[in-house]
Amino acid sequence: MTDDVLAYMQRLGQAAREASRVLASAPTAQKNRALLAAADELDAARASLLEANGKDMDAGRANGLDDAMLDRLELTPARIDEMIEGLRQVATLPDPIGEIQDMRYVPSGIQLGKMRVPLGVIGIIYESRPNVTIEAASLCLKSGNATILRGGSEAIHSNRAIAECLDRGLETAGLPASAVQVVETTDRAAVGALITMPEYVDVIVPRGGKGLIERISREAKVPVIKHLDGVCHVYVDVDADAEKAIRVADNAKTQRYAPCNAMETLLVHNSQVESVLRPLVKVLQDKGVELRGCPRCLELFAGDMVAATEQDWDEEYNAPVLAIRILDSVDEAIAHINRHGSQHTDSIITENFTTARRFLTEVDSSSVMVNASTRFADGFEYGLGAEIGISTDKLHARGPVGLLGLTSEKYVVFGDGHIRG
Amino acid sequence: MTDDVLAYMQRLGQAAREASRVLASAPTAQKNRALLAAADELDAARASLLEANGKDMDAGRANGLDDAMLDRLELTPARIDEMIEGLRQVATLPDPIGEIQDMRYVPSGIQLGKMRVPLGVIGIIYESRPNVTIEAASLCLKSGNATILRGGSEAIHSNRAIAECLDRGLETAGLPASAVQVVETTDRAAVGALITMPEYVDVIVPRGGKGLIERISREAKVPVIKHLDGVCHVYVDVDADAEKAIRVADNAKTQRYAPCNAMETLLVHNSQVESVLRPLVKVLQDKGVELRGCPRCLELFAGDMVAATEQDWDEEYNAPVLAIRILDSVDEAIAHINRHGSQHTDSIITENFTTARRFLTEVDSSSVMVNASTRFADGFEYGLGAEIGISTDKLHARGPVGLLGLTSEKYVVFGDGHIRG
Repeated sequence: MTDDVLAYMQRLGQAAREASRVLASAPTAQKNRALLAAADELDAARASLLEANGKDMDAGRANGLDDAMLDRLELTPARIDEMIEGLRQVATLPDPIGEIQDMRYVPSGIQLGKMRVPLGVIGIIYESRPNVTIEAASLCLKSGNATILRGGSEAIHSNRAIAECLDRGLETAGLPASAVQVVETTDRAAVGALITMPEYVDVIVPRGGKGLIERISREAKVPVIKHLDGVCHVYVDVDADAEKAIRVADNAKTQRYAPCNAMETLLVHNSQVESVLRPLVKVLQDKGVELRGCPRCLELFAGDMVAATEQDWDEEYNAPVLAIRILDSVDEAIAHINRHGSQHTDSIITENFTTARRFLTEVDSSSVMVNASTRFADGFEYGLGAEIGISTDKLHARGPVGLLGLTSEKYVVFGDGHIRG
Repeated sequence: MTDDVLAYMQRLGQAAREASRVLASAPTAQKNRALLAAADELDAARASLLEANGKDMDAGRANGLDDAMLDRLELTPARIDEMIEGLRQVATLPDPIGEIQDMRYVPSGIQLGKMRVPLGVIGIIYESRPNVTIEAASLCLKSGNATILRGGSEAIHSNRAIAECLDRGLETAGLPASAVQVVETTDRAAVGALITMPEYVDVIVPRGGKGLIERISREAKVPVIKHLDGVCHVYVDVDADAEKAIRVADNAKTQRYAPCNAMETLLVHNSQVESVLRPLVKVLQDKGVELRGCPRCLELFAGDMVAATEQDWDEEYNAPVLAIRILDSVDEAIAHINRHGSQHTDSIITENFTTARRFLTEVDSSSVMVNASTRFADGFEYGLGAEIGISTDKLHARGPVGLLGLTSEKYVVFGDGHIRG
């Protein structure tokens, strides 16, 4: 059985590799035509999409999936609208492929520059969220990459139905159907095969919980663009404007609790306890946020906070919980963030130019902000048009990953019979 | 023993991580001061460098190292000059760190851009070539990275002596000595530890033979910037200018045989047999190059070539040997290169604009050239100032890797109390 899965995955890989050669030089208009045709196919297939999803939902309920999982699994007419809209939006994004930059002459007389090219074949591993199938496929297709999609097994019927729409869209545009392939088996060995075929797969993008991503990173023989966790900080500096500090900290925590760019730990300079922390505690309490404070916090806000444990400083709550620490300098704040943060997104609230510069330079995170909410750290807000994830890696792509993160550059050299002397 | 090595490597790792924080915000002038001071230290330590290297050479001879290895191991006054010159040259390169690019306002009102930052800690694993110690250390230092250098055990005395000069240079500039650390044990477990400490090491750059690099890639838990092999092609198109074709192919093969960017396979359109291939065979034979031909070649050049086996098309000779194949179209040439090449450097000789564009787009290699010798593919020729290697990866750095390849970018966001709506 596992042998069969391996052979099956290698067939997918080989087909993807072949398709990637076609996609790499497919004109922008052809890729857009495929995206728009797939959108039309989804629109025409609403009934069968809902039916297929119904099967997944029934099985999910029978297998005791919890409400959150069922919610992510469900396709509704509104979610189908969003998928259709997503495809059309990706079609409007500028095509990065083939862009040649920095052409210049060097002393030998050759002219050289860099051409943007697709990575090749991208494997996406994700949980049972059918809409991710469309998001990931559309970004990979637009950036000229072939994709192998391995969604959670609970969504298999939905994903197959979506894949059929994508196939027909590709066909309409004259592109190979194997440009986007959904893994049709729920055998877990498929994941193991996908992440260990460097001959067919150039990069893996896992989307899901930290456990899944850690496991994939550990076992992969293919580079992984990974997003581990978002332990994001706001530091309220001695020179913070109190009104901005309260507004930003409130937004960073409460605008939405679940996203990875929500604040998990608030760091407050001791001089800002009365001006910022006291009013902020009130605001957050009114919104039902549980506050976990350092010993100094507990002295000042005895009834309002519980004690933070050492573990709290490393915790990604994704929930109405906030760890709070009072400290005495920007140095302590930077040290805390570099030690406990996850190199995701951190913000300082200050009016001091020099302090802001230090924070920007010394905090080692994918997004570093001054007087802005950590919630801005995403591909749409950053103007990337869409994102396939937020990378907490340093190599290749860091921070929100849009189309460019799915590309590479190669050198192009023009000569006129030039030889090296 | 192995436990001790592990503990030792972790101490190095921890010290490197701490030093990397200092280096990340070290001013350009301070880094340059360290480079120039290290150059002066090398200059002052010539006698002890030669003495240390003498020990390595004696041991190498006693252990039966071959001449090529002894040659790479040897430090001569001229090589010490080159190391000193190299340090001074890296000091003159522009510092990429801290550069902020593309600052722009997005619709929410925040202003965002990207700041160039060091990767952090770089582990370099290389063979017994003491000059690599200086090359690698200087590039990493200039790009604000801490380095752990693990050279071949045959060079241990030389590397220690060089490390002392680097340490004194760092000290003169007020930088931590642990910014550059040479692994002082020859225990092979040190390599195993170095490539599996993601908490302390951000990237590994192996420099050496294909076997070493494959082994490191297989076992590493840290990203690897790797250079596997250089199976480089020149394709002489139907529309090639014969004179340019002969000149470039000759140079690509014979200007030097050992470099990875030398041509290993020549592809010739059938129409160019008399105009290009016949005179070229003469030129190459006069230089003593062994020619291995496809069946069509053998028919035409019976006495001049031996038969190429299937394996020859995948071979990196690094020697006066050339595989030659006659084919009938640019399509066949592209297919051959994408199948047998190593995605390093490939060149087309053609006067045809459209054919050139196709080759540039469809050949999936880190450098793609038109009418130029593959020998140009290196960091100095490309104006990078220096190179730490040539990457055959697609992610992060591709092609010659200079200072920029040792850096990453983070997003910086400026607001004025902006929150997400």
